[in-house]
Amino acid sequence: MKKIILYDTTLRDGMQGENICFSPEDKIKVAMRLDDMGIHYIEGGWPGSNPNAMHFFELAKAAKFKQAKMAAFGSTRRPFIKAKNDKNLKALVACGAPVATIFGKSWDLHVNIMDIPLDENIAMIKESVAWLLSQGLEVFYDAEHYFDGYLNNQAYAVDTLKAAVEGGCTTLVLCDTNGGTLPHDVERITLETMEKFNKTSSVINFGIHAHNDCGMAVANSISAIRTGAVMVQGTINGYGERCGNADLTSIIPIVKLKLGYDCVTSENLKKLRKLSRFVSETANMIPLNSRPFVGHSAFAHKGGIHVSAVVKEAKAYEHMDPSLVGNGRRVLVSEQSGKSNIEYKAREMGINLGLDGKNGKSIVASIKELEEDGYQFDVAEGSLKIIMEKLTEQYKPHFDLESFRVLVEKDKERPCSAYAMIKIRVGDTIEITAAEGDGPVSALDNALRKALTNIFPDLDEMHLVDYKVRVLEGSDGTDAKVRVIISSRDRNNIFNTIGVSEDIIEASWQALADSFQYKLSMKKEEIDA
Amino acid sequence: MKKIILYDTTLRDGMQGENICFSPEDKIKVAMRLDDMGIHYIEGGWPGSNPNAMHFFELAKAAKFKQAKMAAFGSTRRPFIKAKNDKNLKALVACGAPVATIFGKSWDLHVNIMDIPLDENIAMIKESVAWLLSQGLEVFYDAEHYFDGYLNNQAYAVDTLKAAVEGGCTTLVLCDTNGGTLPHDVERITLETMEKFNKTSSVINFGIHAHNDCGMAVANSISAIRTGAVMVQGTINGYGERCGNADLTSIIPIVKLKLGYDCVTSENLKKLRKLSRFVSETANMIPLNSRPFVGHSAFAHKGGIHVSAVVKEAKAYEHMDPSLVGNGRRVLVSEQSGKSNIEYKAREMGINLGLDGKNGKSIVASIKELEEDGYQFDVAEGSLKIIMEKLTEQYKPHFDLESFRVLVEKDKERPCSAYAMIKIRVGDTIEITAAEGDGPVSALDNALRKALTNIFPDLDEMHLVDYKVRVLEGSDGTDAKVRVIISSRDRNNIFNTIGVSEDIIEASWQALADSFQYKLSMKKEEIDA
Repeated sequence: MKKIILYDTTLRDGMQGENICFSPEDKIKVAMRLDDMGIHYIEGGWPGSNPNAMHFFELAKAAKFKQAKMAAFGSTRRPFIKAKNDKNLKALVACGAPVATIFGKSWDLHVNIMDIPLDENIAMIKESVAWLLSQGLEVFYDAEHYFDGYLNNQAYAVDTLKAAVEGGCTTLVLCDTNGGTLPHDVERITLETMEKFNKTSSVINFGIHAHNDCGMAVANSISAIRTGAVMVQGTINGYGERCGNADLTSIIPIVKLKLGYDCVTSENLKKLRKLSRFVSETANMIPLNSRPFVGHSAFAHKGGIHVSAVVKEAKAYEHMDPSLVGNGRRVLVSEQSGKSNIEYKAREMGINLGLDGKNGKSIVASIKELEEDGYQFDVAEGSLKIIMEKLTEQYKPHFDLESFRVLVEKDKERPCSAYAMIKIRVGDTIEITAAEGDGPVSALDNALRKALTNIFPDLDEMHLVDYKVRVLEGSDGTDAKVRVIISSRDRNNIFNTIGVSEDIIEASWQALADSFQYKLSMKKEEIDA
Repeated sequence: MKKIILYDTTLRDGMQGENICFSPEDKIKVAMRLDDMGIHYIEGGWPGSNPNAMHFFELAKAAKFKQAKMAAFGSTRRPFIKAKNDKNLKALVACGAPVATIFGKSWDLHVNIMDIPLDENIAMIKESVAWLLSQGLEVFYDAEHYFDGYLNNQAYAVDTLKAAVEGGCTTLVLCDTNGGTLPHDVERITLETMEKFNKTSSVINFGIHAHNDCGMAVANSISAIRTGAVMVQGTINGYGERCGNADLTSIIPIVKLKLGYDCVTSENLKKLRKLSRFVSETANMIPLNSRPFVGHSAFAHKGGIHVSAVVKEAKAYEHMDPSLVGNGRRVLVSEQSGKSNIEYKAREMGINLGLDGKNGKSIVASIKELEEDGYQFDVAEGSLKIIMEKLTEQYKPHFDLESFRVLVEKDKERPCSAYAMIKIRVGDTIEITAAEGDGPVSALDNALRKALTNIFPDLDEMHLVDYKVRVLEGSDGTDAKVRVIISSRDRNNIFNTIGVSEDIIEASWQALADSFQYKLSMKKEEIDA
């Protein structure tokens, strides 16, 4: 079976998207999930242009990937110097990634704009590829603006590819950098180009890198793949500059389910929706409900006629089975799939849900209700555990809040000061403490910590590592409901807790209190796990 | 020149989209704008299934359209009755629209599900079309599930089309109702189908109606148009059930500019971006920044290298001139941005940076320093403008903060209460006000608004639409530095402002204050733009 190589560039080209920003730590988390999904290559950044990228590759060296290879991105050498002296190329080697993807110019217009002689551009491509190969790297060549270049000066565009092949590269990726090409031109140009390399002694693989400026990034990628391309470059959720890159969350299911080519396992394909959500949460972007395959509305049925029929004969109303990509049909409020998920999670967390079906059903209903209110438990397992314990009357809080007061003061040019007073009960003891902090949540965190640490010295090893706030969809402005997700870390674990409220302090308190409760409920073996 | 007929179904199929809702009055406003854009047919609703649709068509009769024809949507007659006795068909006549678009079943699977004999379905199509024509209506036939039907039982699917032609219909619209078909199949099936009607005595026109479940709705529409379809059905912004319908805001510019077919005038094409915004505002949906052609980011450039080149040779970096669709180039100032980006932005914002290079350089340096501190100006143009004005000593604040106090109280099981007191100076006047809110930022927003609205009544039309908080990389927990981005909206604009601080209230205050200052600094023509 034909196999398609998946090359993800969410962490490099995706970050060119407006509002998309990942820290090096975020990037590692995303890379681990991409690896877990079965993505073959993960482009982590451009070490020659961005110091953060270097940091990522350092973290990547320590991370344990199952199968994915890390790729570093960069340009060909600068004109009129030796490849081995080019800072950018040296950074590709130095970063330690086993794969280098370098881009060069295929469009003579661009070469002319940069005042580079056409021949020198050819030499830059060939020598850069050759030098990187001599350093032991696997090398992919991204032919920037290839389709525009081909239309403008076909012979020159093809010559730039030949230069990469002469340098030793066997994977040529045709890029529609401006995103203006339509599928029929992608098909024709890819085919004509491939034909020119059929007689080459080594086997040349082709790839496609498409942008979405005409809403055609997925169509163009599929068009190239059907024509013979074996590598596809894209991003999760199509994040990327302008209108975005080719969306791997569409391409992967189309390649696997519609074209029938090998790319990820059926098992891994089921992780697609969760991966999409994870990346949007990490980027702090609102997930697009209408996103094909993975969106919340992608398999939502509206209208009375359909609903009974969908259940009777799904394929009449659905182009595919949503569970294949980890999504679900949304027809009825109480979904069967919900219950089994929750049962699975409860088992995992060691919570006894009771064996009779009724209890399970009412828990599902309560959790679904909270999710309608904006809670999202798939990214906050700490709070999910507490909620399930509460719903099954197994919850034993380690402390109870009596009250708190938070005060924030600001005077003219001076920064804010924040104070918190807190009164909590632990067993029969009442603790009242006060603390200041760098903000109201920090002050609350400090005050709560102060009140609890004497009693629970283990809390010392827990720290908050991330704090995310999001206004919930469909609500307006600062009056809106907000969702706070707090990530906490102890020696061996990272866990998330969640709060939802119209008041950011209330929502933060819920998430903060849950994080303390969750930490205190951990058994010793969990802490050491 | 080949002419493509544009058939808009935003007001019918578009409203099947989750969260999309228009009142009959909204629908008339949208229809007037569609007419003004040069859309040929406007489907206003399904009078047989929805009483609101009837109301719309009554309003439409009184409205003065330049050229667009109103179309009413409905199904073929029910089985085993006469067409003239069918309530749904009679409603199509009664609503007064000059055009009726009826859909019938092409997929034998669906006919079987409904327990209708295959022959009776054929008769339903033929007789429904014939009766509507006898009532003096122009009739289009939507062949529901045509592509799936063709793949399942080719002969039967074609027979259903023949029935419509025998009934007298000359426009057959092939529908990919489930959205699962890929462009190469659309091309093949459209071509094969058209060939079967080549010998018909009357000229048969073909149309395409595509859904976006594979992210292919635009590609499928263009594929059918290139194959010979002359009508395209779609919605503005691709609104519609599940993953949406084919997006006319992509299809129109592709047809006109990329394929070179006639559809709307160049003059009208320039209204595209505003039409897209108008429809999203009317539907109360946040406009998608990355939407091809019309999105806020569709022609946004990031990164220092590019920008100087974009200005020099736009076609090297843009697949088309954004002004052709009423959009504009945007240069984003970001981490990688150089002096040319900032100069470009300053010009765009009407800020005089001074002609000597030094001033420009020191501004770049200051902005880069702020970016090192966590500011991200490519997502906060409102604050960027204020910063550039400050750095060039052109900043004239409309108000100054003297001080504020924010208090958040929580008692045991009760939710939080939040209060803010604020003291500001406007010219020589000091205003002191207090307000409560659903949280500290909401309380501050309300207090500031209360203090300013008497003096600046325009502020009434500004609302906060999004509020994002994130902890900045490399920092830990609630003590960490946070970045707040606030999106605000007035009648015609959406703009972002930013604040960075270790205190979330301080950061929120900066972004909030900037949003008020920026709004107050807008000129009348910017507000109406």
